[in-house]
Amino acid sequence: MSRYFPEGDDLHAIDLFPGVRAFTAPGEHIHISRVEFDHGGVVEIHQHPHEQCGVMVKGRARFEIGEEVRELGPGDTYRIPGGIPHRVVGLEAPALAVDFFYPIRESYLKP
Amino acid sequence: MSRYFPEGDDLHAIDLFPGVRAFTAPGEHIHISRVEFDHGGVVEIHQHPHEQCGVMVKGRARFEIGEEVRELGPGDTYRIPGGIPHRVVGLEAPALAVDFFYPIRESYLKP
Repeated sequence: MSRYFPEGDDLHAIDLFPGVRAFTAPGEHIHISRVEFDHGGVVEIHQHPHEQCGVMVKGRARFEIGEEVRELGPGDTYRIPGGIPHRVVGLEAPALAVDFFYPIRESYLKP
Repeated sequence: MSRYFPEGDDLHAIDLFPGVRAFTAPGEHIHISRVEFDHGGVVEIHQHPHEQCGVMVKGRARFEIGEEVRELGPGDTYRIPGGIPHRVVGLEAPALAVDFFYPIRESYLKP
């Protein structure tokens, strides 16, 4: 296991929604979550007290955050303050977004 | 200006090192920093009290964190606790890594 490079079995796999899987790893205060979308995979609208910032790495997805909607591709970033409802639709699969939460999301830790 | 999608003039451009440029945008507690490497661009060894997590988006780079060294490509993540010395060498250009700091890095804010 690497202290600085989370990978393989260090990651906690979570089925978030049909066609959407997360692979999470905690830091000290920031929680990393790789989110893989199959075509049409949808993170349904939800909110949480954690701040969520992230970047699209592969493929494309439509982000609906509060009243704003954007289609994002590799290198595009987003920032979601705590408590703001958001929804994400995978468009061009396989799509990968990587999220960074503050503080740690307890429900994303390995049991 | 978008509240949730930092882009264009919202980003604060910083020349970090020769061949290495950052484009930063603060969230509430997390600070986003897009870091672009020319071939051979180097973030020289340094440390800071902020936790730094991130993901390689384009190209390749060698990350030296504490005593660990890895060559990372698109989708690979890293987590650097506060106070740990680190150095990054751009290999396959143009390379893009996106960093997420906690807390906000005051020196990365627009003057």
